[in-house]
Parts: sequence; structure tokens; C-alpha cells
Amino acid sequence: MADANAQSSAAPTASREATSAVRSARRIHDLIARKVPTAAPDDPICQVRSGMVGGAWDLVEVVAITGEDGRLAGVVDTRDLLAAADSAQAVGALMCPWPVVDIESTPERTALAAHRHNVPALPVVDSGGVFLGCLRAEILMDILWQEHAEDLHRFAGLQRETRGARRAFLLDSPLQRLRERAPWLLAGALGSMLATSLMASFEAALAVNVSIAFFIPAIVYLADAVGTQTEAIAVRGLTLEHRALGHVVVREAATGLLIGILLGLIALLGITFAFGSSELALAVALALVAASAFASVFGVTLPWLLDRAGFDPAFGAGPLATIVQDLASILLYLSMVQWLVL
Amino acid sequence: MADANAQSSAAPTASREATSAVRSARRIHDLIARKVPTAAPDDPICQVRSGMVGGAWDLVEVVAITGEDGRLAGVVDTRDLLAAADSAQAVGALMCPWPVVDIESTPERTALAAHRHNVPALPVVDSGGVFLGCLRAEILMDILWQEHAEDLHRFAGLQRETRGARRAFLLDSPLQRLRERAPWLLAGALGSMLATSLMASFEAALAVNVSIAFFIPAIVYLADAVGTQTEAIAVRGLTLEHRALGHVVVREAATGLLIGILLGLIALLGITFAFGSSELALAVALALVAASAFASVFGVTLPWLLDRAGFDPAFGAGPLATIVQDLASILLYLSMVQWLVL
Repeated sequence: MADANAQSSAAPTASREATSAVRSARRIHDLIARKVPTAAPDDPICQVRSGMVGGAWDLVEVVAITGEDGRLAGVVDTRDLLAAADSAQAVGALMCPWPVVDIESTPERTALAAHRHNVPALPVVDSGGVFLGCLRAEILMDILWQEHAEDLHRFAGLQRETRGARRAFLLDSPLQRLRERAPWLLAGALGSMLATSLMASFEAALAVNVSIAFFIPAIVYLADAVGTQTEAIAVRGLTLEHRALGHVVVREAATGLLIGILLGLIALLGITFAFGSSELALAVALALVAASAFASVFGVTLPWLLDRAGFDPAFGAGPLATIVQDLASILLYLSMVQWLVL
Repeated sequence: MADANAQSSAAPTASREATSAVRSARRIHDLIARKVPTAAPDDPICQVRSGMVGGAWDLVEVVAITGEDGRLAGVVDTRDLLAAADSAQAVGALMCPWPVVDIESTPERTALAAHRHNVPALPVVDSGGVFLGCLRAEILMDILWQEHAEDLHRFAGLQRETRGARRAFLLDSPLQRLRERAPWLLAGALGSMLATSLMASFEAALAVNVSIAFFIPAIVYLADAVGTQTEAIAVRGLTLEHRALGHVVVREAATGLLIGILLGLIALLGITFAFGSSELALAVALALVAASAFASVFGVTLPWLLDRAGFDPAFGAGPLATIVQDLASILLYLSMVQWLVL
């Protein structure tokens, strides 16, 4: 028997898979190795061993145990097959718990299931449980590698997809590079126009006391740093561990508040001492508290929503998320200033 | 014969390895599977096949072919061993090109060598070429997974190392999370004090025309976005492909200039139209050109230098790199303003 528990983690509900397919251009179907040693549960071990000799196998790490209907009954580790002392015993007795992948699953989930269950190859079945073949270790490693490269791209807002991007670094001309990088940057440029307009809408406040402007880069940077940490934790949980994060939002908000209070206290003391304005110091401190809390909640919520909608959560740690956070930080700070200083 | 070419890519020069060891707490030595089928080059294929039966192997994907001195002569893929028709032939005839890992190599480089050469297991030798054992696919996948998680942490400036961090997300209290996240944030807080001082040092300029301040968040954000793209490309090249990047700096600078000119032109038109000040528009445009070029050069140089010094290049895409870039952007912009507007 295949380990039902392991199977469920590698092949989640159909509705979720349907949306997750958006993420990956590659399908399990195209990655399966078809020539895998198989045996019936009652076959004697010695017969299965000798049956492997002379075959042109795609992989030898496992023997798939299938019933007469072709359905996968279980998996025998070839190491156990070789080590078995009683060679007349039925091979079915050697079956061990092993994760099984549904053909409709995504490559990403599959590779993570192999990693989690610590196995070198994964059997694949169709919706009726019929054995189709295996994913080899080389394929699983390639998927893990691609996921890593993809996350780096999403974080940075690079346009080109991973498969073709290997060349990108050494061969592309600057003009080609511009084409890959421009789309997110132009979206960012629109966002930064909003930031400029937001600043301009507080012109009166800034004109009264120009030192108000001094703290904007610091507040924006610190809230970004807090948000990026949360995003990395969220992306990690969603893509590398496939956890549901809904219940973590409150805890992240609390962490963000704590960090904000810590940074706010430093700012309160530093600014009161250096600039002699306790109202401004208080405005900066409160803005740091609010912006850090916002960044933490936003940083876990956006990747989670993207994941729910079937997109790669790593997009939620990219340049568009950053400009939204910047806008929020500026708005929070200038509102505090208007309330406390003016 | 082991494939010398493949070996050199998996096991680079000793001096480089010595520094790279800083990166990883785990050593190849602790990850080797020792019980691997071995044979002499002259052993007949049928004898090697039958010799595998009854053994308690750690892996069965390969047979290591060793000489009498224990040195690795080559690797036979078990698939080829099973498929071979002439069972009296010497097993040495089945040896195929295969990457070989030096025991002093890092886990990271090893896993990437396996990925690049598309093999499920890697033989490990000592400095004298003596066969020590193999790295199994499960271990190689785990290394790839850990590298991915580590990069996410480095990007975000999270303190805790990857191995223990799996728990971090669900179990830690907000106070524990604060402790993990605070060190980089406090370093960032120091950097943001510098940013505030830098702003304050241009107080006179800002006081003359408060609209100067409006553009600071946009310029800082856009230069950051450009730099993050370069950093991601550089980190990818260094950690996922182990390329030397020295010669790419000039090309990245050219790409950065192109992006800066594109963003600068948009700013020039937009600001002239919206604010009616062509001097200010020119200052913002030139600042975008200069800051984008700086961000591109800095974004490839810092990861490259970190890599050369034996640190994880992903640190070069973290929060400290960001604040340095922010300071540079502010300085470039306010210098342009002082030169052109005032």
C-alpha cells in the first residue's frame, strides 16, 4: 500500500491544483520516466531481481508493485530488494511507506514532497491510481533548482522566465537586458509618480518645517526592511514548506509592532536629542510603529493572497509590493506630522 | 577514468574552498553514504551484478570502479550494468563520464555539480583520489533546498541560520522573532540615521524649494529596484551557476545607464509638465541616470566581492546593501539639485 498520508501532502485538492498550475509551465506529464521496473505483489524476490537484469531502465532506485489492473499497490526500495535474505519470499512483503504523486500535481509540490519524505524517486499515478512511471532524482533536483532561480527573479521583478534565463547573464546585450527588466520598472515608475504626488499633497506641511522631510528616507527604508523580512518568511513558508499562513497574520502583526516600538524608541531619543523637537520625534516614532506594523501585516498577507489566487507568492516580495509599502509609510508619517507637529 | 573536466568544476582550487567553507556549517564528510557497491575494472559484469545481491547498500544508482590502491578509476551507472548484454565482459568497459567530488568541496558546489551534470549520485574522493563513498540524491536535494531557504534569509536580513529556522515560522513567539530579526534592523537603523543626517546637511537647499523633497522617495525607490534586479542576477550567477562575474560589471553598468536614461526621460517630461520647472526636472532625470548606473555597478560588485571573500553573495542583496544604495541615491540627487537648481 502506498502511504496515503504522504500522498495527500504531495497531491492536494483538485481545486487548488487547478489554480496552482498557473505557476508552472512544465507539467509532471512531460517529466515522467516510463521505463521503471515493476512487479506483482506475489512475485518472488529472486524473480524480481533477475527480471531487472537485461532491461533498459530509466531508473533503478525503486520497483513499482502493481496489481493486475495496473494500479500502484506500493513501492519497494531496490536497496531492500537487494538486501532481502529470503529470495523465495513475495516481493510485496518488502513494500515500504513511500510518497506517491498524482499526475495533476505541480512539479514544485512534487519536488518538495520528495525532499520532505527523503526519497530519491517518486512514483506517479493517474486519477484512477494507475501507475504511469516515476520522477527521477535528476528531474527533482532540476525542479528545486528552477524554483530557486524563479524566486530570485520574482523578488527582483525580472521579466523573463527561468528556463530561458540561464543565458541571460552572459550573452544578452544591454538592450536585451533592458527589455527583460523594463516592464516591472515602468510599473514601479508609475508607483513612484504616486509617491511624488503624495509628497506634493503635503507641500504645506513640508514648507512649514523642512526638517520634516529629513526623516522620510529613514522611515521608508526601515519599514521596507521590516516588510522584506516578513515577506521572506512568508514566501519561505508558502513555497518551500507549503504551509497555510492565515493564522500567522496576527502573530506577524505583533512582531511588527514590537519591532516598530523598538525602532520608535531609538528614534524618539535620537531625534529629541539631535533636533530638539519632541513633537517631531514623537511623529517619527509613531510613524515607525505604524509603518512597521503595516509592513508586517502586508508582507505576510500579500504573498498569502497571491498563493491563494494561484500565483507565485514570491511576486509578493517584489518591486510592486515595495512601492505600495513605501506609499503607506509616507502617508502614515505625514499624517502623524500633520496631527502632532502642525 | 573519472571525467577530469567534470571534476574540476565540482572541486575548484584549494584556496577558494578554504574561504568558501565560511558559508556552510555542514561538511561533505558528514553527508557521505559509505556503503556503495564497488568493483575492480576487470571484474566481469555478471560477477558485479551478483555481488550486489545480499548487500546492505546505502545507494544502488552507481557502482564505483576502484583500483587496488582504493583510488577511484571511474563510475558505472547501474542502469548500464543491468542493460549490458555480454555478461562476461569486464565492468570497466561500462564506465561513463561522471562528475567526481573532492572531500574538501562545499555541499553547495557539490549539489550544483550534480544538477549541472544531471546525475542522481556523486562519488567523493580524498585529496589522493581514494574513493570514500557517495552523496545520495536525497542529500543533494536537501542541500539545494537549504540553499534556497538560506538565500531567502540573506535577502531579507534574517539572523537565524536555516537549519533551525524551519520551526521559526509557526512556533516562535513575537519576542523570539524580534530577536532573530533585530540585528540587521539595528544595523539598518544606524544606516538610516546617516540618511537623515545626509538630508539635514542639504537643509539650505531643501528650504529654498520644498518641491525638491517630493522626488526623493521616487528616486530612492527606483534606484533600489534597479539595484535589486542586478543583485538577483548576480546572486543567481554566483550561487546557482558559479560563474565568475568580473567581466560583467561593464555590461551591467551599460544596462543601468540605459535604464536610467529611460526612467530619466520619463521624469524629464513628466516633471516639466506637472511642476513647470525644467531645472528641477533635469536634476531628477540626471539623478535617475546616475543612481541607476551606480545601483547596477554596486549591485553586481558587492555580491561578487562577498563571494571572492568567502561569504554568501546573497548578503549583497540584503538590507545593508539597500541602505548604502539609498545613501548614494540621495547624495547624487541633492548634488544635482545644488548644481542645477540653486
